[in-house]
Amino acid sequence: MHQVFAVIMAGGVGARFWPASRTRRPKQLLDITDSGETMIAATVARLPADLPPERVLVITSEAIRDAVIAELPRVPPQNIIAEPAGRNTAPCIGLAAMHVRRTHPEAVMAVMPADHLIADVPAFRTAFDTGVRAAAAGRLVTFGIRPTSPETGFGYIELNDESEEGVCDVRRFVEKPSREVAQQYLESGNFVWNSGMFFFTAQAILTEMQARLPALYEGLETIAASLGTPAESAALRQHFPRLPAISIDYGIMEGATGIQCIPVDFGWSDMGSFEAAWELSPKDAQGNARADDHIVVDAEDCLVRVPKDKMVALIGVENLVIVDTEDALLICRKDRSQDVRLAVDALKQRGRNDLC
Amino acid sequence: MHQVFAVIMAGGVGARFWPASRTRRPKQLLDITDSGETMIAATVARLPADLPPERVLVITSEAIRDAVIAELPRVPPQNIIAEPAGRNTAPCIGLAAMHVRRTHPEAVMAVMPADHLIADVPAFRTAFDTGVRAAAAGRLVTFGIRPTSPETGFGYIELNDESEEGVCDVRRFVEKPSREVAQQYLESGNFVWNSGMFFFTAQAILTEMQARLPALYEGLETIAASLGTPAESAALRQHFPRLPAISIDYGIMEGATGIQCIPVDFGWSDMGSFEAAWELSPKDAQGNARADDHIVVDAEDCLVRVPKDKMVALIGVENLVIVDTEDALLICRKDRSQDVRLAVDALKQRGRNDLC
Repeated sequence: MHQVFAVIMAGGVGARFWPASRTRRPKQLLDITDSGETMIAATVARLPADLPPERVLVITSEAIRDAVIAELPRVPPQNIIAEPAGRNTAPCIGLAAMHVRRTHPEAVMAVMPADHLIADVPAFRTAFDTGVRAAAAGRLVTFGIRPTSPETGFGYIELNDESEEGVCDVRRFVEKPSREVAQQYLESGNFVWNSGMFFFTAQAILTEMQARLPALYEGLETIAASLGTPAESAALRQHFPRLPAISIDYGIMEGATGIQCIPVDFGWSDMGSFEAAWELSPKDAQGNARADDHIVVDAEDCLVRVPKDKMVALIGVENLVIVDTEDALLICRKDRSQDVRLAVDALKQRGRNDLC
Repeated sequence: MHQVFAVIMAGGVGARFWPASRTRRPKQLLDITDSGETMIAATVARLPADLPPERVLVITSEAIRDAVIAELPRVPPQNIIAEPAGRNTAPCIGLAAMHVRRTHPEAVMAVMPADHLIADVPAFRTAFDTGVRAAAAGRLVTFGIRPTSPETGFGYIELNDESEEGVCDVRRFVEKPSREVAQQYLESGNFVWNSGMFFFTAQAILTEMQARLPALYEGLETIAASLGTPAESAALRQHFPRLPAISIDYGIMEGATGIQCIPVDFGWSDMGSFEAAWELSPKDAQGNARADDHIVVDAEDCLVRVPKDKMVALIGVENLVIVDTEDALLICRKDRSQDVRLAVDALKQRGRNDLC
């Protein structure tokens, strides 16, 4: 196989899983679906078996770098890089590309978020190989998720007909659609969800960045000059927070030509809310995702996430999200899961950052 | 005023307030309505101001005697008497009567449960005085609550016309009625709820007991012989658990003649469930009984009882009872509050007495 670096984007601070998630314990460090491992550990574990841990780069934040190191004991700590500030995905990927280019300019970077769920790991690995092959030829490649519903929360990618085995040319990227348009996309069969997972060589993405986002590229070059020297940390702190905050989709992908997409169907979820977590969690016969020893009397379709030694009794309730922690308890109607961020907003307004 | 002893019945182990209530912290030791004091402390605090603490007797269980002593610092510890086993109200009241008769055979005993709520304390004290006066004349006297709804969970008392100021003769005691019959009682105007609060002299109730429950009386006499001696504790442990378990209503009141009843209307509740607790608790504009700092987004009519330092967020939920403790969490539809005991039953079946 071509030389590959996995680049795990782990800078997210998602507030939609409060109170389970906190600033210092964001979603990627949780096991919301009760799978037995955190999302970031699962993300690394599902990488191809022959990818050595030394080829895993993780871009995260200073706040959680130590926790990420603890979660990924096989990945060398120097591969776990803390951004001094979150600047969206283009600077994140650009920084990773500078690291990779320094030693392996032609290596393929397989870029993926640390907080997505993929049920079918063999299918993922097959698609991964396809992605590496296409990227090794110099193309920018993205995974497109075959849609299963008219989602309005994702961007879509319109595909041309399949150009070679498993790979399509991209016709265009489209923004989050209305429900009606999403329904049309779903029925047309040639639209996929933009997954946020990419394959390209370090050289290819940096060439695009230089052309399309020159200010970003220049800033990254300044940082790159110090990589591997004693000045690296100071340079990162000085320059990274001033890089333009822009997404790789908006800054590069939506405008670039010759993008390729691999339509995939491997049980993907971006786990955007507790409702998604409920859908993907093991459940009892009444649809409750909960611990075996919890007491359930006429309760249905609830998600219960509490510390292991806590007894829970549900009586006569349905469609609730119940999340308990040492210092905070959430009770939310399941279809209002997106509004959990309102609780975090309220806490911040009150200056209760200790609970965020 | 005639010499009076207040007799507080505090042996209850109500399971309907789990997980707030436990075997060692039953309802009378809780402050479910967030009033600022436990129910037993409120029960003693609402007694007439001129009743000295030395004249308060509390009959409780061994499991919580120390906690009761701690809750009632002004009551002499020797007045807080532990039953070695719960034998219903007739043995409880009989034991208290033996204590009182030893020193004050003609004193009036004002008998009341430790876990009822009374909103209008001045009205209670007025009725208390009336009760003492009627009992001092040698009668068995009970408080009857003016009904406000066709409750099927209480026994009723049918009254004759008022015989003297504030006091009625009892025509009969009736068992818990059907909804239809309860509606008739409510409309008739001469039925009241049997409150479980009584006034009589020690001599009067023991005379009735001797006539109607001779086995009980005999057992109590055996215990009484040792009261105030070093043998008291052993006698209690030996004989009390063998006394017939029978209620004062069934054993004495329902069969006795010449009973008097004082119809009262002082905001009484037996606080039989979390739903009752919600009704009687201070609430926000959306009907939520909760702490000021809790976060409420489109939530209505919930009861939230959690430790003081716990943050709670409610989003899009209504009519829930949410009770959190260190080791157990209850989420119950409010109108299913009576079924909380099912959770306790389930825990006992599993041998989880540590949580009961």
